[in-house]
Amino acid sequence: MREEKTAPTMKDVAREAGVALGTVSKVVNGIPVGEEYRLRVEAAIEKLDYHINSYAKGLKSGRTMVVAVLFPNLISPFFSKLVNCINKELTKRNYRMMFYATDYNPEKEQEYVYLAEHQKVDGIICLSYNPKLRVSENVRLVSIDRYFGSQIPCVASDNYGGGWLAAEKLVENGCRHLAMLRIGSPLPHEPLKRKDGFIAACESMGVPYMQKSLEDGMPYTEFDDFLMEHFHDGKLEFDGIFCATDSLAYVMKGTLKRMGIRVPEDVQMIGFDGSRAFGDLDLYCSTIVQPMEAIAENCVDIVLKPKGERSPSLICLPVTYEYGGTTLK
Amino acid sequence: MREEKTAPTMKDVAREAGVALGTVSKVVNGIPVGEEYRLRVEAAIEKLDYHINSYAKGLKSGRTMVVAVLFPNLISPFFSKLVNCINKELTKRNYRMMFYATDYNPEKEQEYVYLAEHQKVDGIICLSYNPKLRVSENVRLVSIDRYFGSQIPCVASDNYGGGWLAAEKLVENGCRHLAMLRIGSPLPHEPLKRKDGFIAACESMGVPYMQKSLEDGMPYTEFDDFLMEHFHDGKLEFDGIFCATDSLAYVMKGTLKRMGIRVPEDVQMIGFDGSRAFGDLDLYCSTIVQPMEAIAENCVDIVLKPKGERSPSLICLPVTYEYGGTTLK
Repeated sequence: MREEKTAPTMKDVAREAGVALGTVSKVVNGIPVGEEYRLRVEAAIEKLDYHINSYAKGLKSGRTMVVAVLFPNLISPFFSKLVNCINKELTKRNYRMMFYATDYNPEKEQEYVYLAEHQKVDGIICLSYNPKLRVSENVRLVSIDRYFGSQIPCVASDNYGGGWLAAEKLVENGCRHLAMLRIGSPLPHEPLKRKDGFIAACESMGVPYMQKSLEDGMPYTEFDDFLMEHFHDGKLEFDGIFCATDSLAYVMKGTLKRMGIRVPEDVQMIGFDGSRAFGDLDLYCSTIVQPMEAIAENCVDIVLKPKGERSPSLICLPVTYEYGGTTLK
Repeated sequence: MREEKTAPTMKDVAREAGVALGTVSKVVNGIPVGEEYRLRVEAAIEKLDYHINSYAKGLKSGRTMVVAVLFPNLISPFFSKLVNCINKELTKRNYRMMFYATDYNPEKEQEYVYLAEHQKVDGIICLSYNPKLRVSENVRLVSIDRYFGSQIPCVASDNYGGGWLAAEKLVENGCRHLAMLRIGSPLPHEPLKRKDGFIAACESMGVPYMQKSLEDGMPYTEFDDFLMEHFHDGKLEFDGIFCATDSLAYVMKGTLKRMGIRVPEDVQMIGFDGSRAFGDLDLYCSTIVQPMEAIAENCVDIVLKPKGERSPSLICLPVTYEYGGTTLK
């Protein structure tokens, strides 16, 4: 999978011909340059088997060399980082990325899928919030995090294993009573398995746990109420919290601070995603890190597979634990 | 500018015809549906003057309805948020966005500009790190934050005014000795004016100031050294710091904490950008907020202007101050 040779770029042609990048561009675009330069560039193009962004190659093979990428937005750090990784993988293979923001709107999403089909993209990578999404059989679609059935390949983190790992790490760090907090879409999707893995681990270890789930759009104050219900004599009933996302862990850190509860001294906390401030600085919390590069690589591998070649219906990629200040270690 | 009517979408056609979105898609893609449905859809298409994503319309007018957007990456929250806004503006006008990550690499950037030209995009919006960037006269290019001269329109925040505002706000909050910290590209670009505006304001108010500038890639520890040089008897020589970006303010908050200096009690701090944790939660610091939506709207307005129509060479958009915990108010 990693061995694929990346196609030559205009820069490679310039280097091979010993001319400036602009000269290659002129030749490729049919703008006159000195005869000697033209011959050198053409020889380099032939030697390297260069196709301008593989576009000419694409035309021959009936491809557009474009993949449509549909995500709710680029505001959430998880989305923007993952789209960044997908873009890198596509560029490596000389594909271009057409980006569509769906805004969590199922109708918009469906419309963009139809449009992408109509525009003859070579594939669609979609982080969908539309469980009824329909796609023509002519276009390869890869879904991130939402399983649509055996016909549409789905790529996700090992969410179940991640939930299990979070429970294990909290217990390793000395926690004896756990809680899990979750807010998100009530629709079935892979991240729901974080809860299943967490509960299975608690039961397997014989550790008592409780949980509180909210649906998207419900006020976070319900979590405050949940914490208050389990707060007696200045102490919480649990000493370890697993939050289903880093974003939730970030919010809960603020709530706990206002309640006078110290993290990690009084209660330890683990999130899920691996989000960092400014994309690459500190982690927001100790967390289960999603393997963004691997998710992107698998999505692109599958979406560019020749038609008819079969793919697994679900690929779950291994997650890792990383310390980020909200646990003892 | 704001009055532009957005073109009808497939959804509008479905609503008008009283059919499902999938039926419209079938008709548009030439897939058989019941005669009555086909007629209803065709009538709605005609009535609304619908063109599939304006693609057919584009073909007629020699347009591709695609704009190329070139940014270093989608990892920095400033970049990802701004690209998100640009995408929204393009979608509103039924344009599609082809995204290219340049990775701060001037050669890659130049190559993507050549490729975009070759692929006949209708325009290019670029946040460039290549002061020698060349672009053909046939393609409209709008530059964000880097001024290339009178031929290429540049859109930016009012960086000078923002630097001035930061100094004023620190003084309003009681600071008497200011400092400015900056790390970034040594190439001339609009954000450099933050410093000019800051210094002009200090001089106009008669407030003493000092400054420390680092070039990209230099270690942040140089700022630690700068702080230590001006740290005597447990006190800094200055009581107000203007950081050229929120990201730098975030890092300096950590440094000051390690030195035992309290923010905002001992020293107040203002950043620049308006970055928020997880895109839409808390501000990282008190800050000068860049008007992302307005920047995006202006870029798209200009890039889609008919050829030959003239544009200003530099548009600076007003910034605002927002409290984010690192100043008294």
